[in-house]
Amino acid sequence: MGELRKDPVVDRWVIIDPQRVERGALFQMEEPAGRVEKPCPFCQGSEGETPSEIFVLGEPGRKPNDKGWWVRVIPDKNPILRIEGGLERRAEGMFDLMNAVGAHEIVIETPDHYGDWSSLEDVQMRRILETYRARSLDLRNDRRFRQVMVVKNHGRAVSLFEHPHSHIVAFPVVPKGIEEEIQGVISYYRRKERCVFCDILKEELRMGRRSIFESRGFLAFAPFASRFPFETWILPKRHSPDFGEIKGEEIADLARTLKATMGMAFQTLANLSCSLIMHTGPLHEYSRPEYHWHMEIVPRLSKVAGFEWGTGFFVNPIPPEEAAARLKGERTSV
Amino acid sequence: MGELRKDPVVDRWVIIDPQRVERGALFQMEEPAGRVEKPCPFCQGSEGETPSEIFVLGEPGRKPNDKGWWVRVIPDKNPILRIEGGLERRAEGMFDLMNAVGAHEIVIETPDHYGDWSSLEDVQMRRILETYRARSLDLRNDRRFRQVMVVKNHGRAVSLFEHPHSHIVAFPVVPKGIEEEIQGVISYYRRKERCVFCDILKEELRMGRRSIFESRGFLAFAPFASRFPFETWILPKRHSPDFGEIKGEEIADLARTLKATMGMAFQTLANLSCSLIMHTGPLHEYSRPEYHWHMEIVPRLSKVAGFEWGTGFFVNPIPPEEAAARLKGERTSV
Repeated sequence: MGELRKDPVVDRWVIIDPQRVERGALFQMEEPAGRVEKPCPFCQGSEGETPSEIFVLGEPGRKPNDKGWWVRVIPDKNPILRIEGGLERRAEGMFDLMNAVGAHEIVIETPDHYGDWSSLEDVQMRRILETYRARSLDLRNDRRFRQVMVVKNHGRAVSLFEHPHSHIVAFPVVPKGIEEEIQGVISYYRRKERCVFCDILKEELRMGRRSIFESRGFLAFAPFASRFPFETWILPKRHSPDFGEIKGEEIADLARTLKATMGMAFQTLANLSCSLIMHTGPLHEYSRPEYHWHMEIVPRLSKVAGFEWGTGFFVNPIPPEEAAARLKGERTSV
Repeated sequence: MGELRKDPVVDRWVIIDPQRVERGALFQMEEPAGRVEKPCPFCQGSEGETPSEIFVLGEPGRKPNDKGWWVRVIPDKNPILRIEGGLERRAEGMFDLMNAVGAHEIVIETPDHYGDWSSLEDVQMRRILETYRARSLDLRNDRRFRQVMVVKNHGRAVSLFEHPHSHIVAFPVVPKGIEEEIQGVISYYRRKERCVFCDILKEELRMGRRSIFESRGFLAFAPFASRFPFETWILPKRHSPDFGEIKGEEIADLARTLKATMGMAFQTLANLSCSLIMHTGPLHEYSRPEYHWHMEIVPRLSKVAGFEWGTGFFVNPIPPEEAAARLKGERTSV
């Protein structure tokens, strides 16, 4: 019989039901056609085709917008939020609105068009994370912004560009997904005087059945109430509300954890498309010490039905215990 | 410049940005292949291929599970929640779970394999709504259930079966999507001593720019902070938390409103796939008088990116004012 499981952070119930008929189709990825492949504007030597860079890690003595970079950050040409202008908060009848002001940057993660997070060198993975940290710290100087998020889309089903890249977005409001987590974290803290993410971490380390990879500073695991097949969370062991406060040795640990976790995902799920979202606390007076930053990896295996959108109720045919076992290459009897 | 708009019910900010490049692709629907077409187990004469009916509207004197029905309700063969067994609420370490017990029924809406909500006769559309009401009222007699939802998926992108049908699901918990609305409604009521949906209704009637179709008892309109292109809400003018309390003359009005609204959608958007979700209040001690039942229609035009899933932050390239104008066949200068 299927189970109803409750996410302890946001109190969302999920159906976990390994008897669903849709299971069969889950392991066959689509191969959608038509996107920007090589040569591409993100490749070394095409620097002139992109907007001017905002930030770069590269060889000493390199000239701006020239070759010799390791990681390069540029403004998105088609940003979801625009950097210019004021917010102009206002009402329209009973409704509230403001201008879509914010920042939207692209991190070109490597000059290697075919690099991916499982095959990049350790040093390169660290540079990507250092870039995320540097941009997170810089963007908070703009006091219009309340939240910075990093989103990486990998694979044909979710990304138009093949060349490895990620998005950094600064919002003038706190996105609903983070606000919900904050409310859940505060409510749990009031009841228990403990962080719910710290408790989850201890529980997953103790149980082990859902853990996927452990490094000194991080645990990757399949969450108890996974909404999606092979959903994976990466939690830092040290409680901190803010990814921007990550330390040098933690960056090295996280780089190793991400490489290993993505490697297992690519091994288990052919043609995987997935989204990787950094969940970090809001900025300035909106920050909450109870929050615990983390990363969520959402594989795009199944189509999300109208039912899930409409109800906020997810049906997941792969129990997280099975997902963890499969990712670790263990035989499963399920 | 794009706008950030806040949904007044659940306080969710949405980016409305008609300059997005994705706009172009929105009006070209995909035509996915491979689903159950004619002859199908939902057609007249195939009654033996389905589980035994639970409820039926049909010709007087008709025998059970025989021809002569107008609307027929059967259990889903692959239910997301199963009717048998107890909930057995329990803990697993720090986590909460229970058995996936509930009800999952299929409403076969018409014997006509090719019928759709814009072309059905008025009387048939009323029978469908009467069936929803009858099942809603019957399912609440099972005290394990806290919520009944009706979901209709139309079109190839969201439904495996071509024959017109909808789902009725009874949950032992309140789905997150409804719980969020309840919290929003309560918080608004505390501040204003008014229902937020009643206020929205008045505002949309006054402004008119986002209204799509008005009948005596209902208004169809594109909501101010639409998450999706051509998202449409249908609100009853009479405040009531519970669809089950709908009156006979309101059923007639709603039937007319749905037919007209779906007709405009099919006219405007070729090969439309969409989901139609009944948002009604929870049952028994979980019901709240502040709630206002309604229907939400979510066209499935654009792929939802990982960004939206991860952040709860939606980017919509079709402003609802433009959506309403297009649906009504007005020329737009946008």
